[in-house]
Amino acid sequence: MSSRFSPIPGPVEVSPDTLQAMAKPMIGHRAGDYSDLQGRVTPKLQRLLNTRGDVFLGTCSATGVMEAAIRNLSTKRVLSCTCGAFSERWFEICAANGKAADPLRAEWGKAIRPQMVDEALHHGEYDLVTCVHNETSTGVMNPIEEIAKVVRKYPGVLFAVDSVSAMAGVPIDVDGWGLDVCLAGTQKAFALPPGLTVFSVSAPALERAKSVPNRGAYIDFVEFKSFDQKHQTPTTPAISMIYGLDFQLDRFFTEGLEARYARHRAMAEACRAWARERGFGLYPEPGYESVTLTAVANARNVDITSAKKEMSKRGYSIDDGYGKIKGKTFRIAHMGDCTLPELREVLGLLDEVLKLK
Amino acid sequence: MSSRFSPIPGPVEVSPDTLQAMAKPMIGHRAGDYSDLQGRVTPKLQRLLNTRGDVFLGTCSATGVMEAAIRNLSTKRVLSCTCGAFSERWFEICAANGKAADPLRAEWGKAIRPQMVDEALHHGEYDLVTCVHNETSTGVMNPIEEIAKVVRKYPGVLFAVDSVSAMAGVPIDVDGWGLDVCLAGTQKAFALPPGLTVFSVSAPALERAKSVPNRGAYIDFVEFKSFDQKHQTPTTPAISMIYGLDFQLDRFFTEGLEARYARHRAMAEACRAWARERGFGLYPEPGYESVTLTAVANARNVDITSAKKEMSKRGYSIDDGYGKIKGKTFRIAHMGDCTLPELREVLGLLDEVLKLK
Repeated sequence: MSSRFSPIPGPVEVSPDTLQAMAKPMIGHRAGDYSDLQGRVTPKLQRLLNTRGDVFLGTCSATGVMEAAIRNLSTKRVLSCTCGAFSERWFEICAANGKAADPLRAEWGKAIRPQMVDEALHHGEYDLVTCVHNETSTGVMNPIEEIAKVVRKYPGVLFAVDSVSAMAGVPIDVDGWGLDVCLAGTQKAFALPPGLTVFSVSAPALERAKSVPNRGAYIDFVEFKSFDQKHQTPTTPAISMIYGLDFQLDRFFTEGLEARYARHRAMAEACRAWARERGFGLYPEPGYESVTLTAVANARNVDITSAKKEMSKRGYSIDDGYGKIKGKTFRIAHMGDCTLPELREVLGLLDEVLKLK
Repeated sequence: MSSRFSPIPGPVEVSPDTLQAMAKPMIGHRAGDYSDLQGRVTPKLQRLLNTRGDVFLGTCSATGVMEAAIRNLSTKRVLSCTCGAFSERWFEICAANGKAADPLRAEWGKAIRPQMVDEALHHGEYDLVTCVHNETSTGVMNPIEEIAKVVRKYPGVLFAVDSVSAMAGVPIDVDGWGLDVCLAGTQKAFALPPGLTVFSVSAPALERAKSVPNRGAYIDFVEFKSFDQKHQTPTTPAISMIYGLDFQLDRFFTEGLEARYARHRAMAEACRAWARERGFGLYPEPGYESVTLTAVANARNVDITSAKKEMSKRGYSIDDGYGKIKGKTFRIAHMGDCTLPELREVLGLLDEVLKLK
């Protein structure tokens, strides 16, 4: 199999040198070698997320930590902001764990607005707000910094953010914005395989967790904090994945975080321009388009299913829309290690396949 | 780092060709390539476990599925058989999830006996029994087949087995014995890195799960069953790990399961003989010694901590006992892909370091 840029919204392409970095021999997870590894990785993650607080490594996909956030942080009621399939899933996870929750819904394609959250918090008795940063199903990026500002007005309300397809692709200021949990799976903008979830936990969140009963054993924030003192995790971690994460974080800092974010912005702009020039338009409302993934509105009603087959013959997987907007939209991901020339190549092939030029 | 046999009880040594098999490019987890992969792996696991029932792949360490078994299967009361640190952990997981449970304790070094379970089930109102197959802290192997026979006498009582350090090292007959859940992490006898848990779920267990409220979202047996119809998992799976599992399962069948189990028995016998001949003795009660890991009783009171340092200088990690029996015992693991000559080399080095010969 050749290694090439895959524009699907995750698992994204992983660079061959990263895969090789993951292929190092095993080490004991209670031994010094492992503590050295985690002790190296954690400060790099703190730098990436702009936090002096805790950043933990969950051996699970992001859903595992989304569930843990609910179980560790809420005893009263969760306000779950939803604007697409993945944020809606977080609301459903509350019920699956017997937690009281209300959805705060924006239409698909629209963003969550700070004032919606303000109004809901003003009228309700909540102790936790959940929100997706980048809604992968609709290509909408929510204004997390502004929403966090609203949540902070309400004492005793914590804010948990699913940044699965945004973290490492756009700047995140965990301490400056005041995020209590910020989580991401590694198979998106980190450009690693799936199987590991990075998550920050604030001091107030940790304090809350200590008093929450039945918060579970596998992702118990208090246990994570306790083992973290020795640069370890409560249970055996996905060591190969952490080798890869260590390697990728070095790549980020070598490229420079600013340069990395600028590359993501440039790719987003190129992709949006392509969609507009070809007469498609964009699915998200203006001003809230994702930087890591473009959801193209299929305004020309082209046959995306056929295009997908044709692209597949050329060795590229493309996406034909998610759930109820399948076919009406299609999504082009541009996150991770991929470059503007690689994106332009994919867009050129799409022109060819869709006979747009 | 050189690749060599590591006698610690997991994460065990992973063969370089397995690590390379894991380094293949990513694929979309909702695409045909992934379904082909899972569709190949599942029948191999069914063959390994002797089951025609479901075998699922959990992206987590074994603790994640131990917790899920409790959350998915019990609404009344759990009887949690404990005989060491890891089985005791399963009992604690019940409380961490607000589930009623009683421990059924054998002393450290002793095995759970079927008649103990029979008596407890006779007097209590249980709907689930948990038991460890191979207690990694004490080197005791419990008579799972005989215990299962007892549990089956009680209608409505399910039996969940943590086979973390036994599965793929000793024969398991899930259908013949009647195990409702049988789980194992991949970093032990599978000789893979940590980060994936293989687990079987019986039809009665699946039926039970359907009616259990608050069973959680991340490892929900009913969701796993539903996605398995398409050879997929409910959330993004650890794809690299599954590449490795596919490769290792082929290795198992190439070696032959009988030959693989015989190799594990031969290593266990050699290790036990070494311990007896050197005047150490074994920690587990006679007849219940683990086949994948030998817990040596430090009857000669040698300085294991110094030996550990000396072995480390020679490039080998060794274990100096777990928890409250640290120093009083030391454990030599002999599971996975390692061979009798490799084990003999380690034992020879231990002779040298401990000045036993």
